[in-house]
Amino acid sequence: MASATRPDDAERVLDALRQHLDGRRDVVAGVDDRVGRLAGLLSDFVTDGGKRMRPRFALAGWTAAVQDTGQIPDEVITACAALELIQACALVHDDIVDASDTRRGRPTVHRSAEALHVKAGWKGDAERYGTSQAILLGDLALTWADEMFVTSGVSPEALSRALAPWYAMKTEVLSGQMLDVLAEASSATDEATPAKVNRFKTAAYTVERPLHIGAALADAGPETVTALREFGVAVGQAFQLRDDLLGVFGDPEVTGKPSGDDLREGKRTLLLARAMTLAPQDDVDFLLGVIGTEVDAAELDRARTILVDSGAVISIEAEIDALTSRALQAIETDAITDQGRDTLRDLAAAATRRQA
Amino acid sequence: MASATRPDDAERVLDALRQHLDGRRDVVAGVDDRVGRLAGLLSDFVTDGGKRMRPRFALAGWTAAVQDTGQIPDEVITACAALELIQACALVHDDIVDASDTRRGRPTVHRSAEALHVKAGWKGDAERYGTSQAILLGDLALTWADEMFVTSGVSPEALSRALAPWYAMKTEVLSGQMLDVLAEASSATDEATPAKVNRFKTAAYTVERPLHIGAALADAGPETVTALREFGVAVGQAFQLRDDLLGVFGDPEVTGKPSGDDLREGKRTLLLARAMTLAPQDDVDFLLGVIGTEVDAAELDRARTILVDSGAVISIEAEIDALTSRALQAIETDAITDQGRDTLRDLAAAATRRQA
Repeated sequence: MASATRPDDAERVLDALRQHLDGRRDVVAGVDDRVGRLAGLLSDFVTDGGKRMRPRFALAGWTAAVQDTGQIPDEVITACAALELIQACALVHDDIVDASDTRRGRPTVHRSAEALHVKAGWKGDAERYGTSQAILLGDLALTWADEMFVTSGVSPEALSRALAPWYAMKTEVLSGQMLDVLAEASSATDEATPAKVNRFKTAAYTVERPLHIGAALADAGPETVTALREFGVAVGQAFQLRDDLLGVFGDPEVTGKPSGDDLREGKRTLLLARAMTLAPQDDVDFLLGVIGTEVDAAELDRARTILVDSGAVISIEAEIDALTSRALQAIETDAITDQGRDTLRDLAAAATRRQA
Repeated sequence: MASATRPDDAERVLDALRQHLDGRRDVVAGVDDRVGRLAGLLSDFVTDGGKRMRPRFALAGWTAAVQDTGQIPDEVITACAALELIQACALVHDDIVDASDTRRGRPTVHRSAEALHVKAGWKGDAERYGTSQAILLGDLALTWADEMFVTSGVSPEALSRALAPWYAMKTEVLSGQMLDVLAEASSATDEATPAKVNRFKTAAYTVERPLHIGAALADAGPETVTALREFGVAVGQAFQLRDDLLGVFGDPEVTGKPSGDDLREGKRTLLLARAMTLAPQDDVDFLLGVIGTEVDAAELDRARTILVDSGAVISIEAEIDALTSRALQAIETDAITDQGRDTLRDLAAAATRRQA
């Protein structure tokens, strides 16, 4: 049975995160108890949920490069788990940028910090307080990610190999995120901009670089790395296209986000850009008119109909299929272990066929 | 002549920062030109000004530990310069938290990003756009700080020694900053809270840990590290107390900030807490009434008079003197080089007697 699909690997990732967060929170509480409680919001956020896609892909990258793995070493689990703390920063800061109230069906971190202000009955602007503390909690997560990765216990040689994709990934995801914010603000309607956002904000960050990091930790050869990165870029893009569809058509009970949230936030997705290209002018005008507004049920309905009738949905579904096939083909090589290939197939299916 | 006081060390720090920032900005511009231009706001911010206190203290820590230094090696300059990128993140994010319009006499990064939105004539909320991009630019600075430090070229042994104070410092400064935000929101009037903020947000971050990092890079013995940290805690606290005085009495022409900005922002300083303890009740009530409000010229005048007449100012000045003496005494040991001691004396004077 493949190591990275062992159910207890997920448990080990969570344990590694708990251990690191508990240690760091003790340092914060040593400065001041009240701040220690705020840091608890971050610990809860990290440990209470999430699909932990990035550690899973990183562990799959390791498994794909190592024959006869047996148990994955503790230090590799820890290094790969650190990716989840970058994700915590990304989500906490994204939720401020997007002014989101909920995440994973619970209040976002800035809303939770805001609620502490209200509960304490302090004067002043509770919303600004929540935002301020959440900016700093995100910074703390980003700092702790690096600390956890670098002090994971992997050999200096392994660390030195893995730091190149680690740092590249961080610059790529932030660049992609800045482009996403810019696309929304500038009301971009071209396909090139969301395609780049998908490539760097999602594909590089969620799949390609985590696989690359895992492979680098395992001292994988160039053929293995190339195959994994090709797989990663394709699956990562397909993952984002699935996300675009769920952002408009997803079931709020399953996604944990209000239905049609992407339209309301004014997110410039490839799905939307595709509809702009394919739909008749009055439908395009309708979409341009509602995107980024409150979007009531009737408007959401019409927007969905346009996305379907224009052929945008079917075209994006076809693209997901094509990307998935390309990804699966990339790992049909002896440079990938059999265990690794099995794991990667499972992950590709989970990333591209999911409902949340 | 002491290495760390050579004028060209400052130039070398700036060159190292330019080189790292240019390389990173090329990666960002490779994702998208428009995002590359946004990253330019960060580069300009880092290279255009600032006292670069933290690299200077780190280099002084190195000099204090190394006999007969000659030229400071390039990789030590680079590692110490990386501290300036943490500071860039701290300032960019602080300016969002404090809703500051100017920094170093120029628009803050979030205001500059906001101005780009206005100039482009985009619809939507320009202020929110500025804040969003500045959150992400601060994250980029924090990421690049770690990358610059870890890839500086210092030996693996030196890096391993220096990473402990590096990571400790990052958690400490964020904890101190969160406590500062909490103190302001909860209208704290006790002295213990601002004293802790001074200890961790300023002293540890600005002086103690930079010295510690420089000494660790130089493989300093425990006596040297202890002496430097004692010096650092004392000078760092005195530095913050001087800042508190400048925040109310500083000349805006010299500080680059509007006069009385600390009162307007509602900053909970030790100076203010001291006045609350010493002043008669009606003066305390007046201070509590104006802090965190718009504070006109007459109110600023009366607040200043209260701070002086209550004895708070003279008591804080005495504390600055006592801390400075304690700091200078701590380095009267053979464990500190003569060059290092000279440099530290100069820096202590600059940090505690400055006007901006």
